[in-house]
Amino acid sequence: MALSRIMECVPNFSEGRDKEKIEKIVNPFRTREGVKLLNYSNDEDHNRLVVTVVGEPEPLREAVLEAVGIAVELIDLTRHEGQHPRMGAVDVIPFIPIKNVTAEDADKLAKEVGQVIGEKYGVPVFLYEKSATHPDRENLAKIRKGEFEGMAEKIKEPAWRPDFGPAACHPTAGAVAVGARMPLVAYNVNLNTGDLSIADAIAKKVRFLGGGLRFCKAMGVELTDRGIVQVSMNLTDFTKTAVYRAHEMVRMEAARYGVSVVGSEVIGLVPMQALIDCAEYYLGIENFSIDQILESRIME
Amino acid sequence: MALSRIMECVPNFSEGRDKEKIEKIVNPFRTREGVKLLNYSNDEDHNRLVVTVVGEPEPLREAVLEAVGIAVELIDLTRHEGQHPRMGAVDVIPFIPIKNVTAEDADKLAKEVGQVIGEKYGVPVFLYEKSATHPDRENLAKIRKGEFEGMAEKIKEPAWRPDFGPAACHPTAGAVAVGARMPLVAYNVNLNTGDLSIADAIAKKVRFLGGGLRFCKAMGVELTDRGIVQVSMNLTDFTKTAVYRAHEMVRMEAARYGVSVVGSEVIGLVPMQALIDCAEYYLGIENFSIDQILESRIME
Repeated sequence: MALSRIMECVPNFSEGRDKEKIEKIVNPFRTREGVKLLNYSNDEDHNRLVVTVVGEPEPLREAVLEAVGIAVELIDLTRHEGQHPRMGAVDVIPFIPIKNVTAEDADKLAKEVGQVIGEKYGVPVFLYEKSATHPDRENLAKIRKGEFEGMAEKIKEPAWRPDFGPAACHPTAGAVAVGARMPLVAYNVNLNTGDLSIADAIAKKVRFLGGGLRFCKAMGVELTDRGIVQVSMNLTDFTKTAVYRAHEMVRMEAARYGVSVVGSEVIGLVPMQALIDCAEYYLGIENFSIDQILESRIME
Repeated sequence: MALSRIMECVPNFSEGRDKEKIEKIVNPFRTREGVKLLNYSNDEDHNRLVVTVVGEPEPLREAVLEAVGIAVELIDLTRHEGQHPRMGAVDVIPFIPIKNVTAEDADKLAKEVGQVIGEKYGVPVFLYEKSATHPDRENLAKIRKGEFEGMAEKIKEPAWRPDFGPAACHPTAGAVAVGARMPLVAYNVNLNTGDLSIADAIAKKVRFLGGGLRFCKAMGVELTDRGIVQVSMNLTDFTKTAVYRAHEMVRMEAARYGVSVVGSEVIGLVPMQALIDCAEYYLGIENFSIDQILESRIME
C-alpha cells in the first residue's frame, strides 16, 4: 500500500474475550482504502483489545470513528471485568505521527475525532498527552484514576469536565481519552553485572523523574537466566530524546561502577528514523535525508 | 504500492537525447502492476539513459524485457556517439536484491532475462558481476573494452563467446551485460586535514586492491571549498563489508597521521538495512529483526 502520509493509531477497546465482537470492532480497519491494519491482539485476562493501524489521516479518522461507533454499541462497561484499568468501552485512542505528518497533525486529528465522539456518540472525551488542555490531563493514568465505576462522580468535578461531549459518563460506554503522542521506543541496555542496585541507580539518573533525559522513563530489571541486569527504558519522544543519547548516558553512568554495556535490545516496533538517527550520529553523517533510504522511496 | 518481495533493476540504455524515444523505453516501467519506476535520468553528453525501477521479480522481468525490445528497435549504435563507454543499445542490466529476495534470486532473474534477450531479440549477452561465468567477466569495464565498434571482432574470440544469444554482435544493438549485483553504497568519510596524500594513503589501505576490505573501492578526494579531504568509497556489498567497518577502518588509519574523522556522507540512495546495521553495531543491539521497523511492516 502506498501511503504518502502515515499516521498511526493504537485504539484500546474493553473487549478481550468475545471473538465475534472483536472481529466486528476490527472490521472497519480492514476494508478502507488508505488504511492498513498492522496488528490486533486481545487479552482475555485484561479483557482488552489493542489495535495497531496506520493510514493517511483522513481515511484513518473515518475508520477509527466507525470502530468507535461499533464498540460503543457492543461493549457494556457495567458488565465488564478484567485486570487492566479502563474507564470506557473505547478506553484510549492515541494518534502517532510516523511519516510526512507532524505532532501537530496528530493533535488536530485527535481533536477532530474527539469532537465527533463527544457529539455523535455522546461519550465524554478527555484530551491527553500532547493534546491535553491542562498539565493534569497529560498522564492517562491520572485521567483514568477511579476507572469506569468512579468516573460518573469524578466527571462532575469542575477539574474533570471533559473536553468534548456531555459532562456525564455514557451509561454503558463510560469515557475515553484521545490524544496525540509520539511513537514510543522500548529500549533496554544490558550491563555486565548481576547487581540490580546498579541498574536501578543508573535508571534513576537517566530518567526524567531523576533529573535525566526529558522523554525517558527507566527502571532496573534483572535478567536472571543470564545473570545480568539491564536498564529498561521507554523513550516517549525519540525525536527529542534520541536512542543513542540514552544509550551513551547509561554507558557513562555505568562507568563509575566499573560496569560495561554488553548489549541492548529494542522491544517491539520502532520507527525507522529512530535507528537511522543513531547511524547518523555514530557515523557523523552530514546532510542525510530519509528520502535517501531506498525503501522510503518505494513506499511513496 | 505493497511489494512483498523487492528486486531493483538499473538498466542503462544508449539514448540520452531523443525525448520521444526515451519516453517509449521508460513506458513499460510505468504501467505494470507490481513494478514501480523510481527514477530515470538521461544525460545528453553521455547520450545515455539510466532507469531505476523496483518490483516483484516476475513483473519486473516482463517490464525489463519489454523495454529492452523497444530499445533494440529504436536505438542504432552505428549512429551513436557520447562520452560514456557503451557496447549496446541496452548497455548493462544489473539486478539488485532489496527485500525478501537473495543474491541467488537476482542471479536467477538475470539469467532468465539474459536468455530471452539472446534468443528473442538476437542480442548476445554477457553475464557479469555475481552472475559471471568466468572471473574475467565479473568486471563490466573488462567486458565492454573495445565498445560497440570493437565488439564485432572481440566477440569472435573463444574467450569472449557470449553466455546467451548469437556469437555475433547484433548489427544495430551490439551486445549487453546482464547480471546480479548487490546494492552499491557510496559512502565518504571526511578528515580534518587538507592533505590529499593522507586521504589517498588511507584509501589505499582500506580498499580491496590494497589488501583492505573485500567489497570496498576507495580513493582520496579534495573538498577544496572546505579545505579538507575525504576518503571516497564505494561499498559493493554492504552485507559483507559493512558501512561501520569501513568507517572505523578509515578512523583507525587516520589516527597514525594525527588526523580525525570530522563527518561523513551517504551519496544517493542507500538500502535501509545498511544503516540499520550501523545502529545495531554501535548500540550493540541483540536479536534485532528488520520486521521490527514499523515502516517495513507497512510495506508488506
